[in-house]
Amino acid sequence: MAEPAEARLWGGRFSAGPAQLAADYTDSLAVDRRLYREDISGSLAHARMLAAAGIISAAEGRAIERGLAAVGREMDAGTFEFQPGDEDIHTAVERRLSEITGAAVGGKLHTGRSRNDQVALDLRLFARGVIVALGESICELQAALLDQARAHLGDIIPAYTHLQRAQPTTIGHHLLAYVAMLQRDFERLRDAHVRADVMPLGSGAATGSSLPLRRDMVARELGFAAVSENSLDAVSDRDFVVELESACALLMVHLSRLGEEWVLWSSQEFGFVELPDAYSTGSSLMPQKKNPDIAELIRGRSGRVIGDLVAMLTTLKGLPLAYNRDLQEDKRGLFDATDTALASLAIAAALVASSTFNVERAAVAGSDPAMLATEVADYLVRKGVPFRRAHEVVGLAVRQAAAQGATLAGLGLATWRAIEPAFDADGLAALDTARALRSRTIPGSPGPRPLRQAITRATSALRRNRGWVARTARATALTRPAPG
Amino acid sequence: MAEPAEARLWGGRFSAGPAQLAADYTDSLAVDRRLYREDISGSLAHARMLAAAGIISAAEGRAIERGLAAVGREMDAGTFEFQPGDEDIHTAVERRLSEITGAAVGGKLHTGRSRNDQVALDLRLFARGVIVALGESICELQAALLDQARAHLGDIIPAYTHLQRAQPTTIGHHLLAYVAMLQRDFERLRDAHVRADVMPLGSGAATGSSLPLRRDMVARELGFAAVSENSLDAVSDRDFVVELESACALLMVHLSRLGEEWVLWSSQEFGFVELPDAYSTGSSLMPQKKNPDIAELIRGRSGRVIGDLVAMLTTLKGLPLAYNRDLQEDKRGLFDATDTALASLAIAAALVASSTFNVERAAVAGSDPAMLATEVADYLVRKGVPFRRAHEVVGLAVRQAAAQGATLAGLGLATWRAIEPAFDADGLAALDTARALRSRTIPGSPGPRPLRQAITRATSALRRNRGWVARTARATALTRPAPG
Amino acid sequence: MAEPAEARLWGGRFSAGPAQLAADYTDSLAVDRRLYREDISGSLAHARMLAAAGIISAAEGRAIERGLAAVGREMDAGTFEFQPGDEDIHTAVERRLSEITGAAVGGKLHTGRSRNDQVALDLRLFARGVIVALGESICELQAALLDQARAHLGDIIPAYTHLQRAQPTTIGHHLLAYVAMLQRDFERLRDAHVRADVMPLGSGAATGSSLPLRRDMVARELGFAAVSENSLDAVSDRDFVVELESACALLMVHLSRLGEEWVLWSSQEFGFVELPDAYSTGSSLMPQKKNPDIAELIRGRSGRVIGDLVAMLTTLKGLPLAYNRDLQEDKRGLFDATDTALASLAIAAALVASSTFNVERAAVAGSDPAMLATEVADYLVRKGVPFRRAHEVVGLAVRQAAAQGATLAGLGLATWRAIEPAFDADGLAALDTARALRSRTIPGSPGPRPLRQAITRATSALRRNRGWVARTARATALTRPAPG
Amino acid sequence: MAEPAEARLWGGRFSAGPAQLAADYTDSLAVDRRLYREDISGSLAHARMLAAAGIISAAEGRAIERGLAAVGREMDAGTFEFQPGDEDIHTAVERRLSEITGAAVGGKLHTGRSRNDQVALDLRLFARGVIVALGESICELQAALLDQARAHLGDIIPAYTHLQRAQPTTIGHHLLAYVAMLQRDFERLRDAHVRADVMPLGSGAATGSSLPLRRDMVARELGFAAVSENSLDAVSDRDFVVELESACALLMVHLSRLGEEWVLWSSQEFGFVELPDAYSTGSSLMPQKKNPDIAELIRGRSGRVIGDLVAMLTTLKGLPLAYNRDLQEDKRGLFDATDTALASLAIAAALVASSTFNVERAAVAGSDPAMLATEVADYLVRKGVPFRRAHEVVGLAVRQAAAQGATLAGLGLATWRAIEPAFDADGLAALDTARALRSRTIPGSPGPRPLRQAITRATSALRRNRGWVARTARATALTRPAPG
Repeated sequence: MAEPAEARLWGGRFSAGPAQLAADYTDSLAVDRRLYREDISGSLAHARMLAAAGIISAAEGRAIERGLAAVGREMDAGTFEFQPGDEDIHTAVERRLSEITGAAVGGKLHTGRSRNDQVALDLRLFARGVIVALGESICELQAALLDQARAHLGDIIPAYTHLQRAQPTTIGHHLLAYVAMLQRDFERLRDAHVRADVMPLGSGAATGSSLPLRRDMVARELGFAAVSENSLDAVSDRDFVVELESACALLMVHLSRLGEEWVLWSSQEFGFVELPDAYSTGSSLMPQKKNPDIAELIRGRSGRVIGDLVAMLTTLKGLPLAYNRDLQEDKRGLFDATDTALASLAIAAALVASSTFNVERAAVAGSDPAMLATEVADYLVRKGVPFRRAHEVVGLAVRQAAAQGATLAGLGLATWRAIEPAFDADGLAALDTARALRSRTIPGSPGPRPLRQAITRATSALRRNRGWVARTARATALTRPAPG
Repeated sequence: MAEPAEARLWGGRFSAGPAQLAADYTDSLAVDRRLYREDISGSLAHARMLAAAGIISAAEGRAIERGLAAVGREMDAGTFEFQPGDEDIHTAVERRLSEITGAAVGGKLHTGRSRNDQVALDLRLFARGVIVALGESICELQAALLDQARAHLGDIIPAYTHLQRAQPTTIGHHLLAYVAMLQRDFERLRDAHVRADVMPLGSGAATGSSLPLRRDMVARELGFAAVSENSLDAVSDRDFVVELESACALLMVHLSRLGEEWVLWSSQEFGFVELPDAYSTGSSLMPQKKNPDIAELIRGRSGRVIGDLVAMLTTLKGLPLAYNRDLQEDKRGLFDATDTALASLAIAAALVASSTFNVERAAVAGSDPAMLATEVADYLVRKGVPFRRAHEVVGLAVRQAAAQGATLAGLGLATWRAIEPAFDADGLAALDTARALRSRTIPGSPGPRPLRQAITRATSALRRNRGWVARTARATALTRPAPG
Repeated sequence: MAEPAEARLWGGRFSAGPAQLAADYTDSLAVDRRLYREDISGSLAHARMLAAAGIISAAEGRAIERGLAAVGREMDAGTFEFQPGDEDIHTAVERRLSEITGAAVGGKLHTGRSRNDQVALDLRLFARGVIVALGESICELQAALLDQARAHLGDIIPAYTHLQRAQPTTIGHHLLAYVAMLQRDFERLRDAHVRADVMPLGSGAATGSSLPLRRDMVARELGFAAVSENSLDAVSDRDFVVELESACALLMVHLSRLGEEWVLWSSQEFGFVELPDAYSTGSSLMPQKKNPDIAELIRGRSGRVIGDLVAMLTTLKGLPLAYNRDLQEDKRGLFDATDTALASLAIAAALVASSTFNVERAAVAGSDPAMLATEVADYLVRKGVPFRRAHEVVGLAVRQAAAQGATLAGLGLATWRAIEPAFDADGLAALDTARALRSRTIPGSPGPRPLRQAITRATSALRRNRGWVARTARATALTRPAPG
Repeated sequence: MAEPAEARLWGGRFSAGPAQLAADYTDSLAVDRRLYREDISGSLAHARMLAAAGIISAAEGRAIERGLAAVGREMDAGTFEFQPGDEDIHTAVERRLSEITGAAVGGKLHTGRSRNDQVALDLRLFARGVIVALGESICELQAALLDQARAHLGDIIPAYTHLQRAQPTTIGHHLLAYVAMLQRDFERLRDAHVRADVMPLGSGAATGSSLPLRRDMVARELGFAAVSENSLDAVSDRDFVVELESACALLMVHLSRLGEEWVLWSSQEFGFVELPDAYSTGSSLMPQKKNPDIAELIRGRSGRVIGDLVAMLTTLKGLPLAYNRDLQEDKRGLFDATDTALASLAIAAALVASSTFNVERAAVAGSDPAMLATEVADYLVRKGVPFRRAHEVVGLAVRQAAAQGATLAGLGLATWRAIEPAFDADGLAALDTARALRSRTIPGSPGPRPLRQAITRATSALRRNRGWVARTARATALTRPAPG
């Protein structure tokens, strides 16, 4: 069943409307309707420019502005009625505008514009906004981690390598590792914002326009830092989508690591963290279970965002200039990647903030004396033993201790001296967890001083991050129609 | 704002319900509600078995069956009212069942079952069904290609390698290449069906059940060929999802190649195919345009399905046994991959069937005499010239012809003989497109006889495919409740 | 610096040889030289057919066969001298053959053949061979798992869901889950073999040949089950590469799960498995460490094989018919994926075979009484309590026990009866791990009887797998030249 | 066959050396040996710091420096003899150093260092260097594009959307689109450099060191802008690898688009570009072929780099802190991605520079009068017709022209006025390609003035790019040993 051709904006050329199958396959409204604020905002800036440039009259401009405001209100209120021919949000908005203003006025909005540059604009407006939202959510998670890190700055826990207990560290030090990861995520998003913050309107379908459009005015109106350099590129450039999805994928990989650790730590075997009931779930079959589902889902959803990135890169691969319809696939993945990242950041912040550390159990594990082997090696180095020899010596001691079922301290001075004469009575003192931590004085390590400094630096960085978020949110707020 | 804990099936253990943020992050109803038929069908088979095994009474079994039938009717009619606590389709169905039958009866349905094996069952029921649908859709596209191939069996078109005109072939031969690709897709799906067709219920949460469940009976009731071998594996096995997504990804890559060719062929430069208005779209800015959007979208959506495959593989990577909540991510991608593949097959069939070949233009391009160079080389081989020498000779002739602005035939006998004395008057006769095609007598080539044989074989294969689809659809139809 | 054009097989047309930069970018010898056996084998079959079909003389055929045998010996011995113009293995073999036999004879080998169908043949020969090797390696890992499963059939270990202890199971049952996964991998490879086992030679560059090639004879000579259906498809079909890489990717995901578990189990927190020194590594800094590097690398390398699959799918996406040079990228990923899978299977088998289970520690963890909650629920079900009520009851008991610091058994009969009057003295007996395991009598569960049956079935399947490997290896062995 | 345990640096603890299978699976020398300059440079800076901090003596420091210089000379000269126990480049360098200096001195180099922070340092040194090289190669390709753009600034060619001729543009404008894409690639790499330019040494295995290491001194010596913030993060942070691979993947997607266009443009159907013989290849079977293999390989290899990115993201997913051996997989993909990108940029620059445009043929295609439809619409807009009406009018005219077999200009004034009375005699003048191009005066469009401005801006940007490359190369040059 074909629908009437007239309903479509480009229907003049065609003797028959598209078949329903084709309409279903090509319509993007279900995906792109959430861009209505961006679409109206972009159209508003375009209309103001058309009027300022004398391409439409001031009265027409005002009528369009009022009409767009009315459309926006209908959308906000959920009273907007979509029609069968509304194949995308751009069509829907313009169709309704023309109903409100009459076709003689509404039909002038698309002057000097193509859907090719219009959709590029809308998606860039979305990208700018969602980057700010992601930045804000990263700040929230950093804040939650910092709070827990401050509360457990000196609480001992094992540092693992290869998931083997390696050396003692503190819960605070461990959590600060995630703050550092997230700081890179924040900075990547900030860099991505620079490349998203470019105004494409005026590129037309592919080669701009012969009308005297004032692109810089539109850019200013919408708070863009630059206008695009080349019209063929501008209508087919989805780098900002890929870059934003890349940033989300890596962010989600970081969260997947946090998720993995929360799963490990809440297991009976580790037992370092107790999940709040509000952020756990039970089993439909096993009544005793308290499952870290949220941490698992965070971990699992990293795959999804990596998939979104792959989808976009693969779709772009090998496309000739300029616009190709393949690009319509950009939105689904971008929405999914950013929605998933935003939700995962929010839930991770809640999970971190509401988890209780079992500090006694972590301390017992973190005080495992086998983890002090490096301390003895460093002790021997300070006694002048070459590191390789010191390493070998401690290795022999570890084997001997294992054979005797003893700890390294339990071997006794005589045994140690038999293995390496440079070992002295003060060597046994090295075999102390608290002392080992105090000896960590260099930047980045878990000693009390470097940790306090790290907290101070991370707190400053968080403040700067929030400053950027606030400034950028203001500078790039969507243009709103003047009140009716 | 937390909702009351009681609404959830596993709420007994918890003193506080999950926070709304957590509920939003973990609820899967929006994605899995489409599995309601599978869920009811699986529950029905489970209930019948419970009654047959004497675990519940016959009367309880009948009450549950009637209740499930009622739930199914509400779902079918769209009158089912989902509640805030319905975190997934399984919960929703069972909650409503208990309302209908009373908790004393409905509360017995989940006996000996966990959501872990229940969701595995539901997804396998879905997978079996969608494989049949994909098989059917492949048949439709094969049929459309075969029809066009028959209609244009001998119509000349260039065969390209490196997108350079290489040798003459026919439209029929070209289209049969896609029939062959799709045949492999069909066979891959048939193989995937074998591994999806395994019944997991009775695996419980992880280790089966202590109740005397009769797994073989459930399998028979639901038309499964086998029961799963190991309960730990069964609740965490998503191989069938990966395998189905792999098959869809490769299928979509095939369709992306068809899409690329349709885009090329409908360009002004190639001009081999005319798109029907019903399967083209226009431009919002350029009134003369008639764009192959559908072919482009088919091509573009291959990226999406590859992304779905990557998402699932990445999500599964590194998960310990047995069930982990990460697996909840299985459904979104599987639905997206199979929906996309189904819709793309349907629209591709319509596009192929409704396209008109510009046979004259294709024939002109396909008769480009430069493409007959291989014929001369083969001619010289038949005259006893070693192939490498023959190849070199024709290469020289091509250069000489290019320098003179002549065709290979236009070089004249004397020039040819000067290059290679074995060249005789009958050599010029080799420079004929129709003759070149007739000389292709070996299987797989575009000569008249091998082409007719290929059509015959492809038609038989299509008949066999349809037979498999019909048989499998019957054997694996979802169990329906007995009428009220 | 350009090299002389003559060195290349297709140089006749060109006035200048390719620039060095271009040669470096396009040469594939470094990657494809390992295909020399396949290339010689395919050429041998082709030459025999050419002679049998009378396209070359019997004497020429014998000379070529002797020449190819000599080339093969040089390659085997490592004395073959590659020349600058040998841009791929096909060129190298034919160039050397012509040196040995003289160009008048050697120049006839490529008659009726193109590199397009030649490389497709070589890669299919490789694929068939590597599938057999993968099948064999899967058998070895299955055997190692089965041996350990038999040795620890009844040794208790926790079954986890969400990495929370869920229910008791046995080491044997757990390891059999991997045997089941690998069985699916085996069957997927067997299915992939069917589609790889198709002979493409005779497809020429794109449209076959005008020479009377006998394709069926070549297929028979090389042990192929079928000849390709369509020449355009045959030269551009890399489905068998994608399918093999998909199978390897999923196989590696399985191994990544095994790797994850070995990492967990060898941690101090779990402590269920002791790694042999021969399959562990130490730390360059921490002398006491014994790291599960092999398990970590197995897990990590799954990412690489997923990447190989993505690379191939993306490269194929949107390619028009027929051969495009993009396809040259097929080999690197296929070699990497199959090499990685083969090496990972071998090392996993060694790791499993040489690991020692700490059965006492696993048994202690596996006897955690909290894991018996489901048993009580099932007990109540048998007493007639609806499952949902039973589930709720046990949930309340779990909370009460947690509040008192008691186990479920420790709650005492009075408390249990206060919660649920249907609970009787025999209910406490349900709280016994050994009894819980004995009660698992249904197929797929960890009770003694189903486990013994599972071992029997898995042993039979392994025997059948090995039979397929042996038969297929014989049927598809590479054709060898007749001795000089 | 096990090798002696002593050969390995961490052998002290083990009673038996690793099995050969394990050694083969874990050794990374074949991959990481190319990092020898980075490793020696890093060790040199570390040794100088150890001496400056008094941890080793000045004489020991000098001896190590001389020894490392000698090792470097052996590596440079290719005379370095790797031993069976050299499992990675770090081991090889230190083993040889100890041979040269004696173990009493050489054994001190690893003091306060772990392979975990050492390999992170080496890889960051590599990343910094390769970013500079990529930046330089991007400049070369931009320069080649700019040269061709200048030479063909006004030469007409069609702009395509949906691969349908859309509007006239110029070759210069088209090529500048790629300059703009590459500019974003350059900027992304510049941003990635900031995050790679962080010094991790001093993080030890996981928690730093108890020795008084001076991290800032090492950073200064190696030209790093910062030291890492957190030791647990620093040894497991591979963000810079992912970010660099992401940048390469998107860069390769851009090149794949260029490759696709070069393939299209060199086809017989488009015929816009003539490839130089030096950058084409022929066919082994079809003597007349001149194939755009390089453009195809560029396009095809984008898949490979996307695969490398997926591999790394997947490998990192779900890894707990801190170092895990999975990370060893970082190098293979990073080398492959950057090697591929570097080679592809170089060959693309050569291809672009040496291609000849067939300007006449492009101009004929670019002057297709159907592409002027938008001009008429814009003309009508200037006459006051609402754009939507103008669009519809031209659509009707296109249909009428197609029915008559006429061009838009050929319709004649009367027909036009019958369709739309606002159409006047000057409307026909709009139907002129040269005039249409002249009318494109807004920034980013293909009019003469904006194009000249675009060339000027692009030239300035290229100069700034080269300035950054030169400055950064100087600032981050690898530390060299003092001459012997």
